[in-house]
Amino acid sequence: MTDSHEIGERSLAEHRRLRGTVEVTNKSAITTAEDLSLYYTPGVGAVSAYLAEHPEAARDYTMKGNTVAVISDGSAVLGLGNIGPAGAAPVMEGKAMIFKSFAGVNAVPLVLGTQDTEEIITAIKAIAPTFGGINLEDISAPRCFEIEKRLVNELDIPVMHDDQHGTAIVVLAGLINAAKVTGKDVRKLKVVLLGAGAAGAGTAALLHAYGIADIIAVDRTGIVFAGREGLNDSKELLAKITNPANRSGSLEDALAGADVLIGVSGANLVTEEQIQRMNRDAIIFALSNPVPEIMPDVAVRAGAAVVATGRSDFPNQVNNALVFPGIFRGALDNGIRRITDRMMIGAAEALAALVAEPTAEQIIPSIFDERVVPAVAAAIR
Amino acid sequence: MTDSHEIGERSLAEHRRLRGTVEVTNKSAITTAEDLSLYYTPGVGAVSAYLAEHPEAARDYTMKGNTVAVISDGSAVLGLGNIGPAGAAPVMEGKAMIFKSFAGVNAVPLVLGTQDTEEIITAIKAIAPTFGGINLEDISAPRCFEIEKRLVNELDIPVMHDDQHGTAIVVLAGLINAAKVTGKDVRKLKVVLLGAGAAGAGTAALLHAYGIADIIAVDRTGIVFAGREGLNDSKELLAKITNPANRSGSLEDALAGADVLIGVSGANLVTEEQIQRMNRDAIIFALSNPVPEIMPDVAVRAGAAVVATGRSDFPNQVNNALVFPGIFRGALDNGIRRITDRMMIGAAEALAALVAEPTAEQIIPSIFDERVVPAVAAAIR
Repeated sequence: MTDSHEIGERSLAEHRRLRGTVEVTNKSAITTAEDLSLYYTPGVGAVSAYLAEHPEAARDYTMKGNTVAVISDGSAVLGLGNIGPAGAAPVMEGKAMIFKSFAGVNAVPLVLGTQDTEEIITAIKAIAPTFGGINLEDISAPRCFEIEKRLVNELDIPVMHDDQHGTAIVVLAGLINAAKVTGKDVRKLKVVLLGAGAAGAGTAALLHAYGIADIIAVDRTGIVFAGREGLNDSKELLAKITNPANRSGSLEDALAGADVLIGVSGANLVTEEQIQRMNRDAIIFALSNPVPEIMPDVAVRAGAAVVATGRSDFPNQVNNALVFPGIFRGALDNGIRRITDRMMIGAAEALAALVAEPTAEQIIPSIFDERVVPAVAAAIR
Repeated sequence: MTDSHEIGERSLAEHRRLRGTVEVTNKSAITTAEDLSLYYTPGVGAVSAYLAEHPEAARDYTMKGNTVAVISDGSAVLGLGNIGPAGAAPVMEGKAMIFKSFAGVNAVPLVLGTQDTEEIITAIKAIAPTFGGINLEDISAPRCFEIEKRLVNELDIPVMHDDQHGTAIVVLAGLINAAKVTGKDVRKLKVVLLGAGAAGAGTAALLHAYGIADIIAVDRTGIVFAGREGLNDSKELLAKITNPANRSGSLEDALAGADVLIGVSGANLVTEEQIQRMNRDAIIFALSNPVPEIMPDVAVRAGAAVVATGRSDFPNQVNNALVFPGIFRGALDNGIRRITDRMMIGAAEALAALVAEPTAEQIIPSIFDERVVPAVAAAIR
């Protein structure tokens, strides 16, 4: 029995025991007729009448001010793919636990019975007045781009697809510190991004916004370049902000002379030989779960100076949970309507700064570091 | 300062203090890396994989099995009318408190930013896989009929518009006992129903299903009869199941010789003289809030033998809170997909039976009677 099998069996048993890992609870008891008349009719009528006149005060008089929705359509769950709403539900509940435990944010896990872009947008817009923010989760590319863009533009609360931006922020934080460890200038790093889905697109956009000019994205077909046949909208955009020399070719071609490999492929494996084509003191973020694009010991043998993965059992875990609680804590506390690139870069810099003296074994703070949420939240204002 | 003003002021202050009367909380703490790996990745992956194969087990492994949504579009909130989602939110939170406090059910309050029938249906269908039931609330007629009907037919979880059926069930329970008090046969009562909105339509349908044949519905235009000009779909249906002699005329005409007046008009006032036209030992349910169609002392002076209102400061409060917690408790516990007329009649009979010896002052049990939820829940199976 492998460790991962064992933790899975224990998780199943624990979820069966709890029958849902979060619940809705009352902030005050209802034991008397007077309680009922305060929290329900007739007293609540005064609150309703007040909010009808002052809807913006819903943040102060209802749960809206401290509550987000965590929403998935189950189309791209963990490494499991398109498993639908039932399979997505325990992951959303787990995220809701992290929201509450790390940032004191109420998060309502919602799983959707549709994967139609327009229906998802209609549904989320409909329920939005309940919430102070929307965390989209595990929605497959390219639908996730359209859904997020439309909701960001059409709603007056912050909307973030965590798969895109959460990963991107932790990656940028890690890169800032990995550059320090290797004595390289972070903005001059030659970056190869393996995987052009949600995480790849979000990461490319944030690194680009940060000022890293030399990024090459590689998908299953090879290097993404302007004019390549069959690019969808999001890959068209990717081609615009990456690959300034408009190179074409394979992953091997891209890796030759690169400083950084960021693997967010979900599956693609990278060999020791491929890593050997990279520059000296290569930085490898092999983020696919549960199987990284390359195992850390193999990467080090191939010459990597710093290795990060998505796993908790290796050093330098790139974990979205470092980011989303603080992002929404800051957004809720400051009434933010939109999470900008500038805020995300600030969050990455704040995360990086929490590691006073980065080493190959520690470029990213621990998720249990109590400074993490306040530092990230402070960047969102 | 009136009492109702004072309770309103206190309710406002309390809602401001709590900033939401319900919250999302974790059922287990997350304090170690092991907790994280159990409730989130990698452990949760096993739960997701299992539920992808066995989606029906979501009731046992996620909050679905004990969670309902309480949803309003804010179009018919309390006596306040169409005040929108912000104004509806504290009422939905109050209902969520009652769900938890009285029946142990998690209820997620959701308020909608649309009043378009199709958008509401699309949104609720989209989020439905999260929940074990849907409590629609404070949605105006006639849209509420179409929305409920479509959702009942298209979803595999119970959907109930409480304004229609919650009121109806308590009214039937009260009528059963009021008939005992007055020595009349409940099924032979001549009933006048003043108000043909959500509560009126639901009450007419349930009394009809119970076997009360002589019901006359009266709306602002007068008696509802087959062939009356301008009837919408729901009033067409009302005309079919009521008014067997197809009478036309005014409220006065309807009341002449009636045994029961049920006022769910939201506003219409009834005079002492009008009540005097009714049969001896009349039964008056004047349910509009905060101002009943007729005050209890005036009704008694006019000859009423039993009077009920919607208010907690008079005897015989017809309060939906007697019903919805038990309805959904029973539905969740028994995996019910649809709340039938038969279940609703069973719930009304169970409620009525809790009052061992009905009197004019007590035809309905107290909401704090701990037998209420189990009795109602037992009828839903």
